Amino acid sequence: MTDRLVLYPGSFDPVTLGHLDILARACRLFDRVCVLVAASGKPGMWPVARRVELIERSLGDLRCEVDSFEGLLVDEVRRRGAVAVVRGLRSAGDYEHEWSLHGVNRRMLDGFETLWLPARPEFAAVSSTLVRDVARHRGPLADLVPPPVVAAFEAEWSA
Amino acid sequence: MTDRLVLYPGSFDPVTLGHLDILARACRLFDRVCVLVAASGKPGMWPVARRVELIERSLGDLRCEVDSFEGLLVDEVRRRGAVAVVRGLRSAGDYEHEWSLHGVNRRMLDGFETLWLPARPEFAAVSSTLVRDVARHRGPLADLVPPPVVAAFEAEWSA
Amino acid sequence: MTDRLVLYPGSFDPVTLGHLDILARACRLFDRVCVLVAASGKPGMWPVARRVELIERSLGDLRCEVDSFEGLLVDEVRRRGAVAVVRGLRSAGDYEHEWSLHGVNRRMLDGFETLWLPARPEFAAVSSTLVRDVARHRGPLADLVPPPVVAAFEAEWSA
Amino acid sequence: MTDRLVLYPGSFDPVTLGHLDILARACRLFDRVCVLVAASGKPGMWPVARRVELIERSLGDLRCEVDSFEGLLVDEVRRRGAVAVVRGLRSAGDYEHEWSLHGVNRRMLDGFETLWLPARPEFAAVSSTLVRDVARHRGPLADLVPPPVVAAFEAEWSA
Amino acid sequence: MTDRLVLYPGSFDPVTLGHLDILARACRLFDRVCVLVAASGKPGMWPVARRVELIERSLGDLRCEVDSFEGLLVDEVRRRGAVAVVRGLRSAGDYEHEWSLHGVNRRMLDGFETLWLPARPEFAAVSSTLVRDVARHRGPLADLVPPPVVAAFEAEWSA
Amino acid sequence: MTDRLVLYPGSFDPVTLGHLDILARACRLFDRVCVLVAASGKPGMWPVARRVELIERSLGDLRCEVDSFEGLLVDEVRRRGAVAVVRGLRSAGDYEHEWSLHGVNRRMLDGFETLWLPARPEFAAVSSTLVRDVARHRGPLADLVPPPVVAAFEAEWSA
Repeated sequence: MTDRLVLYPGSFDPVTLGHLDILARACRLFDRVCVLVAASGKPGMWPVARRVELIERSLGDLRCEVDSFEGLLVDEVRRRGAVAVVRGLRSAGDYEHEWSLHGVNRRMLDGFETLWLPARPEFAAVSSTLVRDVARHRGPLADLVPPPVVAAFEAEWSA
Repeated sequence: MTDRLVLYPGSFDPVTLGHLDILARACRLFDRVCVLVAASGKPGMWPVARRVELIERSLGDLRCEVDSFEGLLVDEVRRRGAVAVVRGLRSAGDYEHEWSLHGVNRRMLDGFETLWLPARPEFAAVSSTLVRDVARHRGPLADLVPPPVVAAFEAEWSA
Repeated sequence: MTDRLVLYPGSFDPVTLGHLDILARACRLFDRVCVLVAASGKPGMWPVARRVELIERSLGDLRCEVDSFEGLLVDEVRRRGAVAVVRGLRSAGDYEHEWSLHGVNRRMLDGFETLWLPARPEFAAVSSTLVRDVARHRGPLADLVPPPVVAAFEAEWSA
Repeated sequence: MTDRLVLYPGSFDPVTLGHLDILARACRLFDRVCVLVAASGKPGMWPVARRVELIERSLGDLRCEVDSFEGLLVDEVRRRGAVAVVRGLRSAGDYEHEWSLHGVNRRMLDGFETLWLPARPEFAAVSSTLVRDVARHRGPLADLVPPPVVAAFEAEWSA
Repeated sequence: MTDRLVLYPGSFDPVTLGHLDILARACRLFDRVCVLVAASGKPGMWPVARRVELIERSLGDLRCEVDSFEGLLVDEVRRRGAVAVVRGLRSAGDYEHEWSLHGVNRRMLDGFETLWLPARPEFAAVSSTLVRDVARHRGPLADLVPPPVVAAFEAEWSA
Repeated sequence: MTDRLVLYPGSFDPVTLGHLDILARACRLFDRVCVLVAASGKPGMWPVARRVELIERSLGDLRCEVDSFEGLLVDEVRRRGAVAVVRGLRSAGDYEHEWSLHGVNRRMLDGFETLWLPARPEFAAVSSTLVRDVARHRGPLADLVPPPVVAAFEAEWSA
């Protein structure tokens, strides 16, 4: 019986209450969980280092690592010796997207493993895109993101 | 028994025959219907005021209000005292998208209500995106949009 | 401005908390709502009259009619002069099924109208089939069905 | 760090190569895996004890428990102290179905956890229903089920 | 350039206007088309020979063969030297189902080929199941099935 | 019996092994197949002429035409006298998208015909978008695209 590491990759721009719920559940299932902010892709609302910091400040009692990565996810899995990648599924649309991602990754790394956790119903509509949208209109954020992210938005608004 | 108002929000860039079909059906079901052109989001092909005008010119016998709004839809629902928001569903993809939107809105406004009407099969493939695409290639528009919108495109082409 | 009647048809074998939520929301949107238990189809767990009775006992403050029908739904819509049929959507699977039903009904009755309401997330997994399954194993029912239905099951178990 | 048990429930009527692939992958991810043949539901092609036996004979090097259960899955999770239930997803249809099952179970047991593993593409069309269908027509089974199940069918055919 | 044969298999219990539309389109695309009524599976409303006869009487100007088969479709493809099997897709649900069927058949016959044609929107809700349902309630059939099938139902009703 | 031409339109930016599999299968089903690179739409990674050239170099034994087009696909179908357009389906998401495209095209050209071929499972996750993503991170391309495309990427990297 060895320690098993799973990765939880994503953009986290910003981290939501839905992300944190998946993370908390992954932490109950595996010895080690590492949240990985993807640095590639189009530039987000916040820089990668800021996203990492906001996740770290939102962890509360959760014990996990937070890091960022550039390049291919399969390289990260190999390099870190992870047994699987964890992702939340919120809808049939998510399923379709994740199924493609998994297929692609498995083509590049034999034995690549994905674990999907069903989003809690109350978070099934919560995405980072939505959060940015609500924030742009100064809508209520407390039900969508953890307090450090609410504070980060408010700091921006008053800047 | 009081007058009930429902909102029909969208980009309407431009309004299509599919939109007008949903609108006509909503008008048979509710005392008051207000079409709402969303002014936020990325800039469209036509300015919001022009989209409002094209809807108004396409109403024919339909009795409804046409307006635009900025910001969050939930604020509009609250401010206008609407009992529900009406949306057409054309496909399983639409369902997925609308289901997320509804979830988000209900998180921000308790009692927020969405009513979905099934698109007529002959309009199920008609979207504003498609219309703009066909128009870019000067394709046939008469089956896709109302005459005032056809005229608006033709005016642009001859400009 | 006239009174508008909508029908809420289904098997209701038995009525669930999810059904009652859709019903309550329909009652806020329309002047008159009539729940219609479908008497055709395969025999259910409970006779149609019993299902009607259990709905009636579960209405609480809701003001609506409850009835049953045999034959085609379109005949019922015509006969009662309903403006639309109301149905809850819980999933993409529901959407597919309901879209087919609507298509069929519209082929038989021009102007047939269906209104879909999104199920509340907490009821999205609740169906009569599930309830019967849980009941068969004497599982907890209080989160799934209204008290009169819980009582009906318990009466059966102690019989 | 404690031993974590996950359950892999199903009808397994009969076990397929797709089931065994999910099982093998679950065994790499968790300390203990228990396959659980559901004894409730409609009677299958083979008795539950026979299905358990065919799974056991097909395990090869896999180290896991095989058992059967009656009643509600949530009771089994509680009784055995499992951290999660594992299920394979082969298609968007599977996703829909599993999402409902998970929702139901979580309503009955707070903290109930489901983990979905994507089926390998080559097994995505393989189901017990298909296997029974192919077997009824004496079609080729070697690509669909493990050798002990092929042998079991052949024994029946020659009986 | 050789004659290419495609098969159009199904239950056809009874043949609908939707089936005939797919058939007519397949006949424009391929040199030879053979409609194949599946004799296995659960007994239908009408015997297989009757279903074949009703298809033949509904062909009008269409030039194609009509036959029935028992056993596996892959054996029929092999035996008749068909290049592909043709199927209509009416919905995402159909897609899911057909995708599984294709996967299964390709596992049993390397090079097995399926061609999907999109159902016309006006037939997208029309299925044999629906037809039988409408017929049971003596509903209007003329928009759903060809005249020989309408006549067959009426003959039964007056028997 | 006349020669029948089908078109296989797409962006092909770049052509993948999945595209070539669909193409090979279409060539077995029809007398003449013409691959058509769409020149309209947003600018791709490679110019249209380069995409055409890479397809031509990847054909091996396949006998088909390769060309590009601007404007509406329906005009191309009409101009070339094609009996149908061929497209691969990889997922339910593809189905949704293709169903809309087909609906739009049929509205503009009566008798427009689309034929969908199921993607092989091993190519179901392979898309040009994915390929560009993998290439950006210098990931392994040999399982995704034909040798001439691998060479084209490598030439760019060393430039």
